[in-house]
Amino acid sequence: MTVDTATVLAGPPAAAALIASAAGQAAHLPVVPHLVIVRVGEDPASVSYVRGKAKKAGDSGLRSTVHALSETTPQSDLLSLVASLNSDPDVHGILVQLPLPGHIAEAAVLAAIDPDKDVDGLHPMNIGQLWSGRPTLAPCTPAGVMALLAHYGIPVAGRRVVIVGRSQLVGRPLAGLFLAADATVTVTHSRTRDLGTVTREADILVAAVGRAHLITPDMVRPGAVVIDVGINRVVGEDGKARLTGDVHPDVATVASALTPVPGGVGPMTVAQLLANTVQAARQQLSQTSGVPGDLVR
Amino acid sequence: MTVDTATVLAGPPAAAALIASAAGQAAHLPVVPHLVIVRVGEDPASVSYVRGKAKKAGDSGLRSTVHALSETTPQSDLLSLVASLNSDPDVHGILVQLPLPGHIAEAAVLAAIDPDKDVDGLHPMNIGQLWSGRPTLAPCTPAGVMALLAHYGIPVAGRRVVIVGRSQLVGRPLAGLFLAADATVTVTHSRTRDLGTVTREADILVAAVGRAHLITPDMVRPGAVVIDVGINRVVGEDGKARLTGDVHPDVATVASALTPVPGGVGPMTVAQLLANTVQAARQQLSQTSGVPGDLVR
Repeated sequence: MTVDTATVLAGPPAAAALIASAAGQAAHLPVVPHLVIVRVGEDPASVSYVRGKAKKAGDSGLRSTVHALSETTPQSDLLSLVASLNSDPDVHGILVQLPLPGHIAEAAVLAAIDPDKDVDGLHPMNIGQLWSGRPTLAPCTPAGVMALLAHYGIPVAGRRVVIVGRSQLVGRPLAGLFLAADATVTVTHSRTRDLGTVTREADILVAAVGRAHLITPDMVRPGAVVIDVGINRVVGEDGKARLTGDVHPDVATVASALTPVPGGVGPMTVAQLLANTVQAARQQLSQTSGVPGDLVR
Repeated sequence: MTVDTATVLAGPPAAAALIASAAGQAAHLPVVPHLVIVRVGEDPASVSYVRGKAKKAGDSGLRSTVHALSETTPQSDLLSLVASLNSDPDVHGILVQLPLPGHIAEAAVLAAIDPDKDVDGLHPMNIGQLWSGRPTLAPCTPAGVMALLAHYGIPVAGRRVVIVGRSQLVGRPLAGLFLAADATVTVTHSRTRDLGTVTREADILVAAVGRAHLITPDMVRPGAVVIDVGINRVVGEDGKARLTGDVHPDVATVASALTPVPGGVGPMTVAQLLANTVQAARQQLSQTSGVPGDLVR
């Protein structure tokens, strides 16, 4: 008896295609799109993520600047910096790396970013535009998931999508994007009863909770496409830490296609950030100089 | 053999309770909350709705003003009026009755209303706040549905909710409110395959499409609670027009509880508008005079 194994939906080729498309658009602009990343404190994961984003921006022909502020930076100083970036015409995209230290109100900072420069897509205006089905800068991870599915030619319209997790960053906006793409969308969370019954209804199952191996093979309809957004640091029997997703590896014997962790959705998030930066630059340049810009994907 | 019949979830008592609560809050304010309704053109349904809203506001002890503009009003004139209402401290709530004539861009008008005075809850900022789970003025019909369920003591947390229809005014924001209330939420629409299979999963089924009698008894799980948001004008065999919902009357033999049409969700929409007006007034007065205001429901 042979065990079927799911097709691997690798992130890097899809991310490379997304970046190539964005870089191609950037090449037609009169200036190099400029992404500014603001980091507060020295959280090791944040330091690593910010470094990766800035490097990828440079490799892709974009300009990037990182402002690294101390852990004790007052909220007012951060807001002042954001205000100055908002008014600087040489800055096209602003990303404040989350999480912020506990003394800073994240919502206040996100809402202070000019929505037109909000390449993280987390400003309430942009979330509102997303749910209104209007052109918008969409949050990077959800938009990256949609780009990954498109890259691999996986149809979404009319299919049942179940999202496990209702976070502001992933679950909720992803539901809005799938709905705009004509999927029948269900959102589940910690209060959902009999989770397996719900997840088995999915043609496309997305796990975005942050609990290692929450999704087991019995929770997956045979042939479903499974997208694993989780990135969990677990310590193996050998005592070594490694990254693993929200989906148990054995799901590969049930699913028709599955994203790996790492190397699945993660690269898409960074690629989408760069695509959003180019999109923001195009839009800002079209407002000031008449260069065609179009926020519609 | 007896046929069980669903409990009728009548709107008027729930609406009266919501209005009484809002009026009680308004009585503690130093001014009478003032709702301004703007209507453009003479669409008979709009004329009737606006008249009903203004009358209910007056009956409830609120102040209301109606601006009735001609069908040919330029968009710039409408935007000027909105701007003057935004800056008028004596105006606490602004409602522009939809639909607007075809030469006016609804999205531009809705986005021009001060989000703090947007008692219809349709400004992108307020939609964004709704989906961020933060305090907000929520759209009246969706918030009215939640208030109706609360009035009748129907639990929402952990239950499966299926919403038929993904409109900006009802389906989408209602999904956000149910999700914030810990329901497991599915949104269906015209592209959903095998709609009956999905609707039968619902503990609470909401029909908000605008198609008379779309939901038939075979599409409802026995014992489900059914909320009928549809208001459809149909002509009977006697040649007379009457109002009917999206839910077939025979669903009453399957459901445990059902809202009538008319007299179900409709009165809740108007009641929620008044509650939003009081909420907006409290918030604005707390910003200017220190009167306690709290947008959290």
